[in-house]
Amino acid sequence: MRIIDEAALNDITLGSTVLGAGGGGDPYVGMLLARDAIRRFGPVPVVSLDEVPDDANVAFIAGIGAPGVLIEKLPRAAEYERVLQTLERFTGVTYDFVCPAEAGGLNAVTPFATAAPRGIPVIDADGMGRAFPHLEMVTPTLYGGTATPCVFIDEHGNTMYLETATNSWAEAFARAAVLASGANAAMALYPMTGEQAKKWLVRGALTMAQDIGRTIREARVAKTSPVHAVLESQSGVLLFAGKVEEVDRRNERGWTMGTATLSGLDAYHGRTMTLHFQNENLAAERDGVVIATSPDLIMAMEIDSGEPIPAEEIRYGYRVAVIGLPADPHWRTEAGIALSGPRRFGYDMDYRPIEEPVA
Amino acid sequence: MRIIDEAALNDITLGSTVLGAGGGGDPYVGMLLARDAIRRFGPVPVVSLDEVPDDANVAFIAGIGAPGVLIEKLPRAAEYERVLQTLERFTGVTYDFVCPAEAGGLNAVTPFATAAPRGIPVIDADGMGRAFPHLEMVTPTLYGGTATPCVFIDEHGNTMYLETATNSWAEAFARAAVLASGANAAMALYPMTGEQAKKWLVRGALTMAQDIGRTIREARVAKTSPVHAVLESQSGVLLFAGKVEEVDRRNERGWTMGTATLSGLDAYHGRTMTLHFQNENLAAERDGVVIATSPDLIMAMEIDSGEPIPAEEIRYGYRVAVIGLPADPHWRTEAGIALSGPRRFGYDMDYRPIEEPVA
Repeated sequence: MRIIDEAALNDITLGSTVLGAGGGGDPYVGMLLARDAIRRFGPVPVVSLDEVPDDANVAFIAGIGAPGVLIEKLPRAAEYERVLQTLERFTGVTYDFVCPAEAGGLNAVTPFATAAPRGIPVIDADGMGRAFPHLEMVTPTLYGGTATPCVFIDEHGNTMYLETATNSWAEAFARAAVLASGANAAMALYPMTGEQAKKWLVRGALTMAQDIGRTIREARVAKTSPVHAVLESQSGVLLFAGKVEEVDRRNERGWTMGTATLSGLDAYHGRTMTLHFQNENLAAERDGVVIATSPDLIMAMEIDSGEPIPAEEIRYGYRVAVIGLPADPHWRTEAGIALSGPRRFGYDMDYRPIEEPVA
Repeated sequence: MRIIDEAALNDITLGSTVLGAGGGGDPYVGMLLARDAIRRFGPVPVVSLDEVPDDANVAFIAGIGAPGVLIEKLPRAAEYERVLQTLERFTGVTYDFVCPAEAGGLNAVTPFATAAPRGIPVIDADGMGRAFPHLEMVTPTLYGGTATPCVFIDEHGNTMYLETATNSWAEAFARAAVLASGANAAMALYPMTGEQAKKWLVRGALTMAQDIGRTIREARVAKTSPVHAVLESQSGVLLFAGKVEEVDRRNERGWTMGTATLSGLDAYHGRTMTLHFQNENLAAERDGVVIATSPDLIMAMEIDSGEPIPAEEIRYGYRVAVIGLPADPHWRTEAGIALSGPRRFGYDMDYRPIEEPVA
């Protein structure tokens, strides 16, 4: 057990931007929400999965909203304070721990906004080890975990409780609701036992976010390359270094879709890279050859500062390093690739691990 | 108290097509559902509002679906059988009576699919005295009644329970869910007491549907004009008789939107009428002058047979009488017109009662 203070929160915020793999919503927004909760209610303990009793009751806490909405409006604390007790009202179960659904993006820290007022710990784990754009794309889905019963509370004060036939239906209903309302919402979902959490979740996901954030921060202080520091600490692969030449980005049903095309710099001079994104970066082609795909993480970082550049913000002239980080082993299975690989997003590409040498 | 048998159901079905005012979904589909429930579980008692104890618990039962969906797929009985007990599970209240939300269209009889297996009566009343396309457009909304807590169960087996800040939000969430799923769903909504039902609802709405259906049927047998028989029995006004010349109909977000233009026959020779519809017929212009609008009912009936022609089916060459029927007095108030008048649907028109002489 350790205590997350504001300094730790800042490192997690920076690291979760990298784990957002281009998407996941702005972690700065999540940080403001979590910091405010910690200031008002006191620091939040973070526990490892091993510290969670098998018979404990656990739920994911996550925010959902159309991407534009998350930028224009800050999520409200009130929804995160109410969402877990509302799930308890419907299920009759008391939840002892909350856990991020995704350690990438703003949802790395939204659980703190529930945990702080309630005085319960956050588990150092998540259901992705990164960010994904659909709420059924979590490791519990691979093992029969169910998104519902779940509760959704939006900023208008609307409460939706769902029991769905599949996790994809929970995604469809929640997404339809935020698109219809133009609102942010807090969700409590994927109720599970401690025993299930230990089998199903990505261990140490918050620590990984914090490590990445600290690595970037320390490299900046030491005036060494943050990009290379992250690659070294996370067993990552440098996929490209280049200048953004063209961005084709559009909004479809609340999603940021498109491609960014880069021309090579330095060792990559004369070569090109295309990043394909649907909220997250989902595939990278170098000189027309697919060299990385989801579920592995693909992230653009500003070459000098190591600042992670989300797909929503990448634009002409940016000089970026494109890095690949290996997905958690949960994802590198047949079921994991079926649920989150490139074909799931409509790309006619096979998954290939980022560390596999390119022919 | 009286018993609704299959013959009565047939008259209600025909009459509720007229009360659908061009929309409301195909009553034949509702009749099949209700008839099947009555055949399996026995006849259903219908009671007047005066027979409902003040402290009884009442809920509307209604189906919701994108219009195309209601034609392609029959609603499933299972959802109607489960929806009320699911509301009871969440609210802890036992409901003693069910009631149609709208006596126009298929929802006139969907409550029978809940009442028959449960062995409880249907109330001879509704929340519209017609059909409207939005679930907040019911008379309880005028008096502070709330659509939620409500339960929505779709044909995929998904259950959604809502507590919304306004009745419009309940509409938005339920509509978004059926559009996202492409499914039919059964809903139990607007829980109220017997005392509230007596103050808020349109009395005798099922009887009105049945009377209209019987009137048409008897006129056909007697070879008199069904159109004139309906006008006489319901204090209606003949607005036009003409041939359909042009229909401009499109589907927008699951709605049937557009206009039908008619050229006059007989006494209306040389004159024109334009019907404006958004699922329901909402306004009628004769020679460019607005002579009828919602909340009054505007309905096209085939001149000879009296067959009511929904807005989805009206087409070139049909010879129709366009009739106006007065809305229930609940609607002819300032609040009623604000909630359901033409401006609510985006038409730049004032409400004028159908019986008011045209200058």
